[in-house]
Amino acid sequence: MRKIVIGVMGPAEANDVEVKNAFEIGRLIAREGWVLLSGGGHTGVMHAVNDGAKAEDGLTIGIIWTDHDRQASRFVDVAIFTGMGSARNNINVLSSDVVVACGMGAGTASEIALAIKANKDVVLLNDNDDAKAFFCGLSKTLVHVANSPEHAIEIARMILSKRPVS
Amino acid sequence: MRKIVIGVMGPAEANDVEVKNAFEIGRLIAREGWVLLSGGGHTGVMHAVNDGAKAEDGLTIGIIWTDHDRQASRFVDVAIFTGMGSARNNINVLSSDVVVACGMGAGTASEIALAIKANKDVVLLNDNDDAKAFFCGLSKTLVHVANSPEHAIEIARMILSKRPVS
Amino acid sequence: MRKIVIGVMGPAEANDVEVKNAFEIGRLIAREGWVLLSGGGHTGVMHAVNDGAKAEDGLTIGIIWTDHDRQASRFVDVAIFTGMGSARNNINVLSSDVVVACGMGAGTASEIALAIKANKDVVLLNDNDDAKAFFCGLSKTLVHVANSPEHAIEIARMILSKRPVS
Amino acid sequence: MRKIVIGVMGPAEANDVEVKNAFEIGRLIAREGWVLLSGGGHTGVMHAVNDGAKAEDGLTIGIIWTDHDRQASRFVDVAIFTGMGSARNNINVLSSDVVVACGMGAGTASEIALAIKANKDVVLLNDNDDAKAFFCGLSKTLVHVANSPEHAIEIARMILSKRPVS
Repeated sequence: MRKIVIGVMGPAEANDVEVKNAFEIGRLIAREGWVLLSGGGHTGVMHAVNDGAKAEDGLTIGIIWTDHDRQASRFVDVAIFTGMGSARNNINVLSSDVVVACGMGAGTASEIALAIKANKDVVLLNDNDDAKAFFCGLSKTLVHVANSPEHAIEIARMILSKRPVS
Repeated sequence: MRKIVIGVMGPAEANDVEVKNAFEIGRLIAREGWVLLSGGGHTGVMHAVNDGAKAEDGLTIGIIWTDHDRQASRFVDVAIFTGMGSARNNINVLSSDVVVACGMGAGTASEIALAIKANKDVVLLNDNDDAKAFFCGLSKTLVHVANSPEHAIEIARMILSKRPVS
Repeated sequence: MRKIVIGVMGPAEANDVEVKNAFEIGRLIAREGWVLLSGGGHTGVMHAVNDGAKAEDGLTIGIIWTDHDRQASRFVDVAIFTGMGSARNNINVLSSDVVVACGMGAGTASEIALAIKANKDVVLLNDNDDAKAFFCGLSKTLVHVANSPEHAIEIARMILSKRPVS
Repeated sequence: MRKIVIGVMGPAEANDVEVKNAFEIGRLIAREGWVLLSGGGHTGVMHAVNDGAKAEDGLTIGIIWTDHDRQASRFVDVAIFTGMGSARNNINVLSSDVVVACGMGAGTASEIALAIKANKDVVLLNDNDDAKAFFCGLSKTLVHVANSPEHAIEIARMILSKRPVS
């Protein structure tokens, strides 16, 4: 009965390409019938990915860093208020079957690193070559590089297909 | 777009009455169209309340104390793995529009206390008179006593109706 | 080399008796050579117990609920900033060899309950009969009632003497 | 009265150079009269840095990822048991006046990223050029590169000297 959860991580301040990619990733996640999990913020990648998922009537879960609703995206269906600040980043990755990092920033970098630490597959979608070199160096097997939202989803589908049947 | 979330807290080891009450509360929450949030465990009140909610095709969120799936109820749709032990109890109450405590134990007591601390309404459904005296003494306004699952839902409905429009 | 840590929990808003008791407990903890751990706040029981411990040149650790220094007692030597709100209450009890609850409030009640959940001994020093009845009902073996700061320390010494040698 | 706290982060599995550097950093921190904070583990950089600090009779605080004592370094004076897994990494950086990263791994990378997110200065001591390029790209002002334990301490001293007087 457990639903498949895809976590999308990305910066609260994002450029146009990142926002467009995030929206498209959210849309594609919903079309696959997967649940979208994110940090749930009301700006940047977090907002756009939830917007995209709701455009396709997906289910959206936000793991909010505050203990209140004032900075959460209105496109989040179920808001989990942690009141824990960035410590909630670890919950984001533990709760995701696959982690997709769209764009880059300090918070996103922490989530990629925490995902590797927790032995989770991560898909990177960004144009930061230093990030790709560094994280692929941290784990050759868990870190995957995508060149488009469609490619990120394709990699996620491949990762899910290889999971042990529980 | 935000869904109403009702948190049901209760012990992992529960007696027959508590299990029956938890199942019924879960059923009624789903029939109201509310999301059920719980600690997500695979035994006792946590398991029964999710079982009840799924019997009515509700949406169930489990805030799991471990970082893995082995102790989570199969009736949880979306498992949020915190890996934080009992520190996740605070997330349970922060994320619930109303907290319902069904039965009693040390973990449940901590959730009632944390709910009061976070200024959340709590509905108590149990036969522990010491608990009722103590928690009603902690807060006259936030703590409500129910005498049946139906009564607990009625109180929850009343609490939700008085919330400020956001 | 591990030092003995006594956690003292109590409300941020406290009456004169509670503040006096907290100061005395802090003093006695320092005189035993134990480390004082508290929630580290700058008011009420938290402030007074740290004040007392420093009056005897003890070592004081504060597990702060915020991510900054503005609400921490100046009598805390080492401030651990959790930025986690009340979720840090679980850290308070996990890190204490014995938990002493001085006074009562919702936060303190959560810490007593979390201590019992974590199988930690708790010493209650307050005049709330409902609290004593409730928590002694939750655990006959872990909950101890003291009638003075000196009595609380005597009970703590007795608990420590029965610990398995590691 | 608040003590200066230097956080040293590094992998549980470390090579000889990293262990030697960690020991030396711990020694130098203690000689400065600073408190050493670390993840408190009983292996690798965490163990060595505590060993070094105790060799100079420093005060050592370990923020332990488990809820028990079995994987904590015996050179930790005060063990803070979080039971939160890697979510405690955020506490490590929030509680440190300066963060020193000795060596590299997924957990360490998360701590560097969380430190930048929390606006904390970080000193990198390692031979991973990809890491240096990536993290210096994340923040030109907060990330500092050291080429020896002595250099790391010198940078820490400089950072502390520029802090606003509170």
